[in-house]
Parts: sequence; structure tokens; C-alpha cells
Amino acid sequence: MEIAPRLWLKLELLQHTGTFKPRGMFNRVLSSDVAAEGLIVASGGNAGLATAYVGQQLGHRVEVFVPVTTPMIKVQRLEDYGAVVVKTGEVYADALAASEQRRAQTGALLVHAYDQPEVVAGQGTLGRELAEQVPAADTVVVSVGGGGLIAGIGAWYAGTRRVIAVESRGCPTMHDAHAAGRPVEVAASGVAKDSLGAARVGDIAWSHLQAGHISDCVLVDDADILSARRWLWQEVRVVTEPGTAAAVAALRTGAYRPVADETVVIVLCGANTEPTDLVSAG
Amino acid sequence: MEIAPRLWLKLELLQHTGTFKPRGMFNRVLSSDVAAEGLIVASGGNAGLATAYVGQQLGHRVEVFVPVTTPMIKVQRLEDYGAVVVKTGEVYADALAASEQRRAQTGALLVHAYDQPEVVAGQGTLGRELAEQVPAADTVVVSVGGGGLIAGIGAWYAGTRRVIAVESRGCPTMHDAHAAGRPVEVAASGVAKDSLGAARVGDIAWSHLQAGHISDCVLVDDADILSARRWLWQEVRVVTEPGTAAAVAALRTGAYRPVADETVVIVLCGANTEPTDLVSAG
Repeated sequence: MEIAPRLWLKLELLQHTGTFKPRGMFNRVLSSDVAAEGLIVASGGNAGLATAYVGQQLGHRVEVFVPVTTPMIKVQRLEDYGAVVVKTGEVYADALAASEQRRAQTGALLVHAYDQPEVVAGQGTLGRELAEQVPAADTVVVSVGGGGLIAGIGAWYAGTRRVIAVESRGCPTMHDAHAAGRPVEVAASGVAKDSLGAARVGDIAWSHLQAGHISDCVLVDDADILSARRWLWQEVRVVTEPGTAAAVAALRTGAYRPVADETVVIVLCGANTEPTDLVSAG
Repeated sequence: MEIAPRLWLKLELLQHTGTFKPRGMFNRVLSSDVAAEGLIVASGGNAGLATAYVGQQLGHRVEVFVPVTTPMIKVQRLEDYGAVVVKTGEVYADALAASEQRRAQTGALLVHAYDQPEVVAGQGTLGRELAEQVPAADTVVVSVGGGGLIAGIGAWYAGTRRVIAVESRGCPTMHDAHAAGRPVEVAASGVAKDSLGAARVGDIAWSHLQAGHISDCVLVDDADILSARRWLWQEVRVVTEPGTAAAVAALRTGAYRPVADETVVIVLCGANTEPTDLVSAG
């Protein structure tokens, strides 16, 4: 199945920890003074993993705040990178509040999952790489959670290329902000919740949307996300998270329609998933 | 886990059809005159898929001869590439004999899975690429079935780099030929049989072993292959066939031990597998 006239897939899921996130986390930490108390992050997901990895590589203590409901398998991966995992509260907001309190007490460096300038700039190095690797790109299609990655890519291209935000209908932070004219709270749900499920779009991402650095926001259904994820395995032998497959679903469903001869890059941003439901033939 | 001081993974499993095979099949077909009867191959596995794909891309009719025991899922994939699948005989040798008879009758071009000069030269383009991509490589580690890929890589480097052949204990065609001083028949078995299970090493591969273009032949156990396959998913988010993971197992088990500062390239050559038994955490 042809999903774009000229299609490139950027395999960010092969980065350390299985996502693009270490780009931003490295930049945040390397451009800051880090006290002996080290790093603090509130995330049991990809941002937590990336921060734990960066701390391990750079020799900083890392505390990761997660809700008590976080699966043991995720806690174990964080601990495998040497992080101290603090389980507190029922939901993410509780863990975030506890992490900010702890930061105020200790002077540790807070690493935000997506809404700090250094984090966004680090994710933007992906745009810089793309400009070298696929100079003919007309369009970059990116799945969006809190918007750190697309903000960085949008900032790099600064309106010289189309940058398309794709979200699941259950996690529409950027789409709903666009529609409302301001960031709004959303209750994340659906198959992409674990990687795209931010409560609201980041202020930095919102500012790049307003500046025209992000061209359009489209939504896809969960069923189309799961179908796109199967297609990625069956056709190109790449395993992705559901959230990552949303960007592919946008092309397969026509939520984003390239014109003739348009060169499209899809960023495949994460692989922290179980491949146990994938089979090789369609 | 560090398995070599300086390690590169060559992701040949991202090629069309999920393996390196189209390199050789394209070269075989593009350097031959092809009659209207098209291409013939005897293989329900990766060689068959690659030939079907090449035929589809170049506009040639393709007949694939397979034993009647070939799973429907493999037949379907061949037919998806437009090939005509001929089921005949109980075992591969029957299908091969039937394919040769058909070739003699029709004048179609026979594409061998691994033992034709054009096929080997095509696989050898991987060596040429590696020389550009990793000029510092000291050693290339390759899983071996019939030996087409390692013969091509060995021919390219011509003794200027170490080229290590890795086989499962159940599919030891090159190892046993090396030990016996001549190619011998083996009865393939074990977890890597579907991709490494040739009946004997190719004559071309054997000649490169004798010429010193292949430095050593090592064997690994099935359990270590499956462990290496899990490691590849958990650590680098790449899904491979068991046969492909054999090359990784050779380093993890010490069947091949690099020296300090040795730069090792492992060729990850195929991904035609079901990932249903893989999980993300160890």
C-alpha cells in the first residue's frame, strides 16, 4: 500500500530508551547546573525513562515521581537505569505536585516531559537532522502528546516546511487548543494514552502553533492507529507504540492527504510497547 | 549489557521483504536475459519472497516451487507479491527437482537461494556499503545458512577484515564443511531452521572459506539464540528471526570474543518472524 508519493520514515524509536526523548533530556541537563541532588522528573513513561538514562550516562542522581498505580514493569525499567522511583498519589498530577515540592526542598533540577525551552530545543535537533538527511522534505508528520517534539521541529523549520500534528481522538490536546483558541484541559483516553496522554498542550508548543510553525492538527481513531501499527510491522518490520502509529494512520486514512510528488517524512518516535499482538502476514 | 567494545548493527532486516535477499536476487535478474516465462525459484522462505518481490518490481512472471507442507501464511505472502506458487513434493528437494524440470521445459531463469555468482555478488554489495559506512570495522559477524551472504561479504573484503560465520548447532553447514574439509550434507533442525536450514553449504561460499575470506566458523545453541533475540528487542527495539539472532548470540556467549577496542559489525539479516513471544522488559 502506497501511503505517500515519496515517503521517508525517521526511526527515532531506535534511540536509547526506545524514543526520541533523550535528545531533549540531554539538552536540558547539559545546559543546566546540576546540584548534588541531581535530577527530578514526574513520569512513569518515556520522559521518565529518558531522564533516568541521561542521569545514568552523565553521573547524576535521578528521582522519578510516579503515581502508585504505575505498573511494576515500568518501575523496574526505571530502576534498571539506576533511578530512585518514588510512588505517590493516585494520578499523575499528584506525582507532579510531589516532585515540585521535593525540588523546592532539595534544589534538584526539574526535567519537564515536554514544556521547557531546553527540552524543546533538544527535540528540535531532530528537525536539524532531517534537514540534512531529507533536504527535499515538503512535510513532516508527527504524533503529538504534550507537544515537545513537534514544537522543536516546528521551531527548526520555522514555517519553511509543513509540520502536521497528529493526535488520537482520545488525546486531542493540541487539536482542542487550536479549536478553542487557547490551551484547554483534556481527559486522556484510548489506545495511545500511555504516550500521547498529556493533560494539556505545552505553552511552548502552543506558541509555535500560534506562530504558524505547526501547519495543521488532525485527529485519528483508535482503530486506525492499531491498523497502522500492524501495517508498520507487516510492511516495514518496525514495531511502534500505538501513539507513534497515529502519525502513519493520518496518511493511511486521508486525515492528511499529500499532493502529487509531495515528499513526506513520518517521525516514528517510540517503541515502548509489547509486540505480542503483531503477526507477520496480513 | 556490553557485548563488544565498539559495536555496530547493520539493519538489513529493514530491506524490502524483510531480509537482505533482494540484493542478490536483483543482481541475478538484472544481469541475465529473462525470457517471457520469467523467473523460477524453489523456496517458501526468504529467497522465494525476495525473488517474488524482484519479479514484481521488474515486471517478470515468477513461479515459486515449494513443498506441499509449506504453511498457508507463507504461500499467501508469495501470492501477495504476484507470484505463482506451485506446491509439489514432501520436502524441499522435491520442490527443487520440480523447479529444475520446469526450468528446462520453459526456459525461465532459475534464481538460486544462495549459490549463483550473481546472487553472491549482489549480497556482496552489503560489504561494499559497510566499507563506506563503518570504515573502521575490524570484524563482520554474519549468520550463515547456505552461505550466499557471507560469501559476498567475504569476497568484498578479500581477507582484509575478519569475517565470522555463525551457525546454530542444528544448521551447521559451513562449520561441518570446515571440519570435514569438504561440503557435507546436514539434516537441519532447531529454532533457526526456517532461515539457516540449508542442506549443504554453497560451493561458492566453500571456495571463499578455503580462500581465507571467511576467518572462522562458530556454533551457538538454540537457547542462546532465543535469548539474543529477546535481548535485541529489549535493548535496541529490533525484532529479528531466530537465525539472525545467532550472530548476536556468538558475541553474548563468547563463541566469538573481540579483543579490546575491536570494532565489530553484526549483520542483522532478517525479520520474517512472529514477534508474539517478545516482551519489552527483561
